[in-house]
Amino acid sequence: MTTSTEARQGTPSGYRILNEADLRDHLASITAVADELGGPPDRWSITEVGDGNLNLVFIVKGTSGGLAVKQALPYVRLVGESWPLPLSRAHYEHLALTHQGRLAPGLVPAIIHHDPVLALTAMELLEPHIIMRRGLVAGTTYPAFVDHVTTFMARTLFFSSDLALSAAEKKEAIASFAGNHALCKIAEDLIFTDPYRIAEQNRWTAPWLDATAADIRADLDLHVAISRLKLKFLSSAEALIHGDLHTGSIMVTERETRVIDPEFAFYGPMGFDIGAVIANLLMAYLASAGHERTNGEREGFERWVLATVEEVWTEFARKFLALWRGEATGDAYPVSLFPGEAGAARLETERQAYMARLFQDTTGFTAAKIIRRILGLAHNIDFELIEDTRQRATCEARALRLARSLMVDTASFTTIGAVTQAARELRHWEPEF
Amino acid sequence: MTTSTEARQGTPSGYRILNEADLRDHLASITAVADELGGPPDRWSITEVGDGNLNLVFIVKGTSGGLAVKQALPYVRLVGESWPLPLSRAHYEHLALTHQGRLAPGLVPAIIHHDPVLALTAMELLEPHIIMRRGLVAGTTYPAFVDHVTTFMARTLFFSSDLALSAAEKKEAIASFAGNHALCKIAEDLIFTDPYRIAEQNRWTAPWLDATAADIRADLDLHVAISRLKLKFLSSAEALIHGDLHTGSIMVTERETRVIDPEFAFYGPMGFDIGAVIANLLMAYLASAGHERTNGEREGFERWVLATVEEVWTEFARKFLALWRGEATGDAYPVSLFPGEAGAARLETERQAYMARLFQDTTGFTAAKIIRRILGLAHNIDFELIEDTRQRATCEARALRLARSLMVDTASFTTIGAVTQAARELRHWEPEF
Repeated sequence: MTTSTEARQGTPSGYRILNEADLRDHLASITAVADELGGPPDRWSITEVGDGNLNLVFIVKGTSGGLAVKQALPYVRLVGESWPLPLSRAHYEHLALTHQGRLAPGLVPAIIHHDPVLALTAMELLEPHIIMRRGLVAGTTYPAFVDHVTTFMARTLFFSSDLALSAAEKKEAIASFAGNHALCKIAEDLIFTDPYRIAEQNRWTAPWLDATAADIRADLDLHVAISRLKLKFLSSAEALIHGDLHTGSIMVTERETRVIDPEFAFYGPMGFDIGAVIANLLMAYLASAGHERTNGEREGFERWVLATVEEVWTEFARKFLALWRGEATGDAYPVSLFPGEAGAARLETERQAYMARLFQDTTGFTAAKIIRRILGLAHNIDFELIEDTRQRATCEARALRLARSLMVDTASFTTIGAVTQAARELRHWEPEF
Repeated sequence: MTTSTEARQGTPSGYRILNEADLRDHLASITAVADELGGPPDRWSITEVGDGNLNLVFIVKGTSGGLAVKQALPYVRLVGESWPLPLSRAHYEHLALTHQGRLAPGLVPAIIHHDPVLALTAMELLEPHIIMRRGLVAGTTYPAFVDHVTTFMARTLFFSSDLALSAAEKKEAIASFAGNHALCKIAEDLIFTDPYRIAEQNRWTAPWLDATAADIRADLDLHVAISRLKLKFLSSAEALIHGDLHTGSIMVTERETRVIDPEFAFYGPMGFDIGAVIANLLMAYLASAGHERTNGEREGFERWVLATVEEVWTEFARKFLALWRGEATGDAYPVSLFPGEAGAARLETERQAYMARLFQDTTGFTAAKIIRRILGLAHNIDFELIEDTRQRATCEARALRLARSLMVDTASFTTIGAVTQAARELRHWEPEF
């Protein structure tokens, strides 16, 4: 197995970085793609639009339809060839997308074509969807989002866990994603390590947050907490997680939701995905003050965001528990050990206890995802688009204070209501700069 | 990767079950083996001695040396072809043995020859070593055992964990053992499930333990506890564990110790291995009364066993911590997050907390390994050789009572001294039959 994984780390012969003309020729040669687009290939419009950090992304439009085409580069696009990154990530993304599409139909883009040699995937064009984070910055609410994202998480996590799979199926699934470690390593470094120490790539809103960043680099209780979370990320193979489930990986309209970009997928702790969603909503909430033109202008939006945080957890938990009660075909918690009415009641109590443990994990990972976006390499437009740096730093300091509390005092947050209450209390807190 | 794993599940063409004549021809064709044995092949003595449940084991002696040759059968030897078991286990055993031999030299048998097609491994002949369990039944003490077994566990577990490996190395290692799921499944069923429910293969010392077995099948607190341990066994990829580290997998003389038979190896929770050693020592202790000819005859042996239980944990912890302090090259707990004197002190506190968590796991798995040997399919000669069934059941009932307490009240056992004290208190307890 090592051999095939290692082979996948190199650049396969036949791979080449496509320009728009190459891509036109390639797509024209695939019947399914040509049919989807419609009309003669020389009439197709092709535009490279990738604004992510890693890949090329082309929008292709024909006379009858459109496609989004993603090609992996053998390095990090944002940095260049000095930061190589294996093309194999396109393989794992395709694998994860296939899995998610089967389990959560309609909640990920449909795959039209995948070419393993070119590390290229053509997907349905999401129009008029926008990146959810942009909508949140603009103060837009998404009434269908909770239902969609909780269905996505409950189904993809439950059905890849020991509650749904046999141990043999799960071990094979773990192995099939084990080679994606270059992407995992990015998360390990940028989320769980660098923000807590001096690291070249770190940045923050200076000079306002200089003291806070230094405090966090000296906060040993926090370092113990993040190290425990990192260990969980390294060793808890609970479910196939998306691995990067922030609001920049979600495309929305008012009625539709699509989760994209699962190239960080691997078998890890479920709380990492749920925490990613909650963290990014909490950041949208605490960034909101920075986008007000008049005091209180976004109160309705902010109320919606906090209500959404609460519902993300409660709806996720409700759906996950319903799956567990109805479709527990896995090897964990065999029902034969919980016979009769008393057994069923005891198993139900244990299900609640399991969810309480998962909530603790979620709370810790929520905090980790907030801190990395304010003190680490990759930042969010939620905060970045606040032009007044002092105002931006004020919002960020509130989020850091919330995160510190969530990570170190995790056990005191026993309900999602306690989390939103803590966020609400910090909404008007004024840090001393 | 799935493909190579699946291929390994079948019986490869070229595989055949060897009789003594076939084996002689095969071994004669391998220079390293013929040299080790010495003399003409037709003078070698070959005897099949396998008394385990799964494989053929031959003792081969030449004029200058001897070998133990183990060949996997495509089914469970004890049961026959109706219970198929993949030959791939010989591959995983060889992989684990190689890993253990590198990390704990002199504590596993040296490999002389491995044939993947025949699922056959030739190892150094361990003479005059005996299976440790037989020695314990006879009341023999092993003064070097603690040092050896704790070195074996500390080194094999530490160096395969996130404390020593990069995340990439560890993920590759997990994948390389992921195909061994048929063996894992045996543990999942026979240790974590069947003893707690009606199952055809269960047996116990009837009629004396009928009521106790029924109590355990109805004990929902215990069922929750064993289910949590099972989930940990299924999803905690902490280290490459031996997977079957009982006193029947250890060969000893007064001065030497060799750990054999790692065919159940996979990436699982460390506490499972440590708990296996402790459980089997505790069973030797509580079985000892059944092997007395006169009251108190084995007091010295029993004191040694309990002292050994304590030292297995304390020496393991001491050696594991020393490795962590000195050779922490892995991705978990990066020292850069714990700078200076204050950082070093905080990390040391966290190391102790980590060991306390590992001790809790160990305590739970200890209990699981005791219960499966008394109520499940596979029993121990520690108890089985007590001919008076009422006396045997008395010893077993004490062990079950200890195990129930260890598994359900795990948190109240914060030191290994508390575990041995509980065992000591049960040594003279008389169950009501």
